[in-house]
Amino acid sequence: MSETTPVVGIVMGSDSDWPVMRAAAEVLDELDVAYEADVVSAHRMPTEMIEYGRSAAERGLRVIVAGAGGAAHLPGMLAAVTPLPVVGVPVPLKHLDGLDSLLSIVQMPAGIPVATVAVGGARNAGLLAARVLAAGDGEEAGRLRQALVDHAEELRQTAHAKGEALRRQL
Amino acid sequence: MSETTPVVGIVMGSDSDWPVMRAAAEVLDELDVAYEADVVSAHRMPTEMIEYGRSAAERGLRVIVAGAGGAAHLPGMLAAVTPLPVVGVPVPLKHLDGLDSLLSIVQMPAGIPVATVAVGGARNAGLLAARVLAAGDGEEAGRLRQALVDHAEELRQTAHAKGEALRRQL
Amino acid sequence: MSETTPVVGIVMGSDSDWPVMRAAAEVLDELDVAYEADVVSAHRMPTEMIEYGRSAAERGLRVIVAGAGGAAHLPGMLAAVTPLPVVGVPVPLKHLDGLDSLLSIVQMPAGIPVATVAVGGARNAGLLAARVLAAGDGEEAGRLRQALVDHAEELRQTAHAKGEALRRQL
Amino acid sequence: MSETTPVVGIVMGSDSDWPVMRAAAEVLDELDVAYEADVVSAHRMPTEMIEYGRSAAERGLRVIVAGAGGAAHLPGMLAAVTPLPVVGVPVPLKHLDGLDSLLSIVQMPAGIPVATVAVGGARNAGLLAARVLAAGDGEEAGRLRQALVDHAEELRQTAHAKGEALRRQL
Amino acid sequence: MSETTPVVGIVMGSDSDWPVMRAAAEVLDELDVAYEADVVSAHRMPTEMIEYGRSAAERGLRVIVAGAGGAAHLPGMLAAVTPLPVVGVPVPLKHLDGLDSLLSIVQMPAGIPVATVAVGGARNAGLLAARVLAAGDGEEAGRLRQALVDHAEELRQTAHAKGEALRRQL
Amino acid sequence: MSETTPVVGIVMGSDSDWPVMRAAAEVLDELDVAYEADVVSAHRMPTEMIEYGRSAAERGLRVIVAGAGGAAHLPGMLAAVTPLPVVGVPVPLKHLDGLDSLLSIVQMPAGIPVATVAVGGARNAGLLAARVLAAGDGEEAGRLRQALVDHAEELRQTAHAKGEALRRQL
Amino acid sequence: MSETTPVVGIVMGSDSDWPVMRAAAEVLDELDVAYEADVVSAHRMPTEMIEYGRSAAERGLRVIVAGAGGAAHLPGMLAAVTPLPVVGVPVPLKHLDGLDSLLSIVQMPAGIPVATVAVGGARNAGLLAARVLAAGDGEEAGRLRQALVDHAEELRQTAHAKGEALRRQL
Amino acid sequence: MSETTPVVGIVMGSDSDWPVMRAAAEVLDELDVAYEADVVSAHRMPTEMIEYGRSAAERGLRVIVAGAGGAAHLPGMLAAVTPLPVVGVPVPLKHLDGLDSLLSIVQMPAGIPVATVAVGGARNAGLLAARVLAAGDGEEAGRLRQALVDHAEELRQTAHAKGEALRRQL
Repeated sequence: MSETTPVVGIVMGSDSDWPVMRAAAEVLDELDVAYEADVVSAHRMPTEMIEYGRSAAERGLRVIVAGAGGAAHLPGMLAAVTPLPVVGVPVPLKHLDGLDSLLSIVQMPAGIPVATVAVGGARNAGLLAARVLAAGDGEEAGRLRQALVDHAEELRQTAHAKGEALRRQL
Repeated sequence: MSETTPVVGIVMGSDSDWPVMRAAAEVLDELDVAYEADVVSAHRMPTEMIEYGRSAAERGLRVIVAGAGGAAHLPGMLAAVTPLPVVGVPVPLKHLDGLDSLLSIVQMPAGIPVATVAVGGARNAGLLAARVLAAGDGEEAGRLRQALVDHAEELRQTAHAKGEALRRQL
Repeated sequence: MSETTPVVGIVMGSDSDWPVMRAAAEVLDELDVAYEADVVSAHRMPTEMIEYGRSAAERGLRVIVAGAGGAAHLPGMLAAVTPLPVVGVPVPLKHLDGLDSLLSIVQMPAGIPVATVAVGGARNAGLLAARVLAAGDGEEAGRLRQALVDHAEELRQTAHAKGEALRRQL
Repeated sequence: MSETTPVVGIVMGSDSDWPVMRAAAEVLDELDVAYEADVVSAHRMPTEMIEYGRSAAERGLRVIVAGAGGAAHLPGMLAAVTPLPVVGVPVPLKHLDGLDSLLSIVQMPAGIPVATVAVGGARNAGLLAARVLAAGDGEEAGRLRQALVDHAEELRQTAHAKGEALRRQL
Repeated sequence: MSETTPVVGIVMGSDSDWPVMRAAAEVLDELDVAYEADVVSAHRMPTEMIEYGRSAAERGLRVIVAGAGGAAHLPGMLAAVTPLPVVGVPVPLKHLDGLDSLLSIVQMPAGIPVATVAVGGARNAGLLAARVLAAGDGEEAGRLRQALVDHAEELRQTAHAKGEALRRQL
Repeated sequence: MSETTPVVGIVMGSDSDWPVMRAAAEVLDELDVAYEADVVSAHRMPTEMIEYGRSAAERGLRVIVAGAGGAAHLPGMLAAVTPLPVVGVPVPLKHLDGLDSLLSIVQMPAGIPVATVAVGGARNAGLLAARVLAAGDGEEAGRLRQALVDHAEELRQTAHAKGEALRRQL
Repeated sequence: MSETTPVVGIVMGSDSDWPVMRAAAEVLDELDVAYEADVVSAHRMPTEMIEYGRSAAERGLRVIVAGAGGAAHLPGMLAAVTPLPVVGVPVPLKHLDGLDSLLSIVQMPAGIPVATVAVGGARNAGLLAARVLAAGDGEEAGRLRQALVDHAEELRQTAHAKGEALRRQL
Repeated sequence: MSETTPVVGIVMGSDSDWPVMRAAAEVLDELDVAYEADVVSAHRMPTEMIEYGRSAAERGLRVIVAGAGGAAHLPGMLAAVTPLPVVGVPVPLKHLDGLDSLLSIVQMPAGIPVATVAVGGARNAGLLAARVLAAGDGEEAGRLRQALVDHAEELRQTAHAKGEALRRQL
């Protein structure tokens, strides 16, 4: 975690979501984006959860990444109390393979959007946060935009190398 | 709506849920149980929603019936801020036939239960509230228990009469 | 299991459901609520099952918690023969991940409600039973209401501690 | 309905199922198989339902066709109290398109089989009852077997004629 | 397998279905019903499959139990070429948990019924075959009817004993 | 329908599938590919169905397009008796929205492929047949390849025009 | 559509998606955010589609909102060729109720995120675009942040008024 | 891989798909069809992907087999830029059991067909490619047609032998 003021808040309903959610943190580390991470449960600490959302913008956060499973209410409830973009990560639980998590997060009513990524897709949630930050003006946005372009280029090269390895193997 | 102090609170995320939710009110009318009904949106009025749940018990409510659709967070969020039993009604929206509403309500994490009924099953939500009230001690519980037994007997007789009509028709 | 007269009956279609259902018993133990537990199969012992439901109220039970899997008929059949609130626990079987159990329990017809919890959500079923008991008048209800408030506070503190641990780890 | 003693019992949870279930009666009429039809609700008249199943064999029934929707418990409960073959018809309700009805009927636990047909497939339920009756020895079974062979031949000819009409139309 | 002429034919699309399908054979062994078992693939040996169905009745079979997985065409195709009752067993494959197998078997068009049991429910398929045989007249049907009643009684007693063991354990 | 020898056979389980399946014929008309169309039911005329598949290649057909709904066995059974490519069209029926048709057609076991298109996707089935014919050598394949390229270009221009209309409208 | 340089690009696979997608435009109009709208089909004009994504950032766009149905490839393909945040709207088609559209858009592989909203949730897509723009620095971001706060307050007041109307009606 | 010019191109989004996709290569080896295999990611190397599709026909390919998982865009995007038949293989990922992959591939819009096979059904994809090649004129098509007939005969014999082994075992 960078030591500068966090601009992304990564929160999850339980620390059991961390093995999934850490991928969001990792990609932000790679991209040199400062973040904070915390357990903020909509159901177990509703007051703190609402306070977290309410104060997020003034504390300097610019994107919230929220992961939850089952009847996953955290991303939507945070989106209800902040004007910041909230990225929702459906965490798969023991049953139903994350379909419940996905629908609980993505099917938000008109007025309160959650930017939902794939079941277990925390790395993409981190990347989406970075794209949001890179969409702005200023030097840091420019740096990040370039970092994202470089990241895409790396993906391309890795895929290319895998193809070459496969072709050689045949 | 009875004029005595309400013991059941019927709430919903939007007045567009009322055509489904009114069936809960109707059965409580039939059973002479005092209730209140209101729009309490988890996403559009989170502060009031939490205040509603927090104050419910001390205001005299003994059961909350909450209906919502899509990423339906109302029943679960209320259950997070009250020790009262919360009955959740999955309201079907335009797409996905209520499956999203059902999973968003029923798949609550351990610690915060919601008593979920069928998609669109508001009448059963009202009946479940009545069963909860009838499970207690005292005169009113006894009256309600008898009313529920009578209600079951009516169901039996109606079904019986339908069978007779069908047999005659053949 | 407490030695006083049980007020909650925990029943299941087979003893293979016990590893799931015991979580209902455990939370009732924590909350000092007296319960009984039994195998009562709708399909394998229909007469006893109906007798169980019919006599439940007069034997002193005030809530029934019923778990079953697949074409899960136990909770609904019990609800058909008792005016007590029946809490249904969808037990996941080898195939379909509990979706069949969930739909078989929750989609009850108007007139006969089952208070359904999450797939495998037996702990919440026990908590829901406690909420029902706590919704009444009298000393025991008051004690239980406080116990539920304390339980919620513990959940909050545990979640808070987990968040602190996570923050320190980063 | 034939005037001889019924050998097939067509039952359903509500008369609202009749528009679906009548197709079972119609095909039995076509095949000259005597049947009875009745409303027998597992949830609204559990005692009569069990009595219906218990006495079915001795009253001369040899197959039961049972239709129900939602958390459809009728076919399975009847199968639990009779050794006769029970054919289950998943009746589609307003939501979920019969998927709940199907799973509630077909996913029976080992020991208690229900012969399930398609969602809304009452005509096939009647035909299945006829196949069961035709599988036995004796004159009536022989007559019915021939009638089923003739029925299959008619299906073939109708399909053939439809193909011819289509070919001509092009 | 009994040495008398088989009256039930157990067939499956591949020998990899046998671990599931053997449960049908086992219950027929328990009930002393003579059966045969074979691999008859709709897709890999269509001619033999159709010949198997066509000749089944004259070879003395009275019920066919057919298991298949994925796009499971065997039960329906056999039902298309025999007037015997065909019991379909959806065999779960590596993906989709048997939902494809179930829908491919149960959703037959009007005219050609398949008596479908649960995903992997081969034991019930055997029991259903026995119920069909027991629905007829004659001594063997009577014997089998009694055996099925005894089987149900055993289920009851086993369930009862499990309940007792559970009660003691608490 | 062209008057030259058909190279594509369009078949369906019932003439009620024609409103869906005619789109396959229409696109072949547009591309000037000769086809035949017929009702060939796997369940209602299994012998003719198998004969149709067996003789298809020698009669000059080079692709079969087969549509069916529910437990849709026609495409898979045809693929079992011909070495020609078989294109399967899942026809949606009254319930389950074509999901049963799709899974019954696409989930074929290893060894017998069906080229499945979207639910109700008959136009694409016709185009796929054309792509198969265009994949070969010779003049007709060349003509067809060009026609497909032209078709793609038309799609592009139509989409482009729609975009322009939308831009002007704003 | 505002006359200043568009900062949001609203694109869709076909003009038949416009009745759904226009809600994104409408909310941007309400919030005074300049946008452009166009038909950009991944399948029918792949070259233009990739060119659209490639040039988006340099043309001044800061967010892309992309709607598509069925095998919906547009949002993901655009996300593959731009570092801008891409918001995906699953457009429901005639069959499967948008479930295919949702999964095709949300289940993106690690590396290429799409911010997915509800089935048919174009208004939320527009709001999400506005939240992204409001997350930045500068005067316009500040104005927009305030507009979003005002929008949330309006939602609250409307919901409150609906509740009042409902309470009066009882 | 044969050393002659490849006529089938097997491509996949990532080398992690190879354990599934190699079955397509294996069956082409068995049938002596020359193929190439490569990693061509729609999302990670969109330019190369489109170039691959555009040049496929002129490089001598006659069928493309494309496998991908999750929001699987590769088969559909290739089909958008080539007139060759494209066979799509839904590769199952960690969650949702391939249902997302299947719908993302099969539900293509009118105009751009993908010949979809079963989840994980790469062997059938190879066989389908062979059927396409065998549908043409000329010596090689004839050889391949015979090889496919032989392959079907082997399937038949293997199934037959399995049946015999099962019969002996009983």
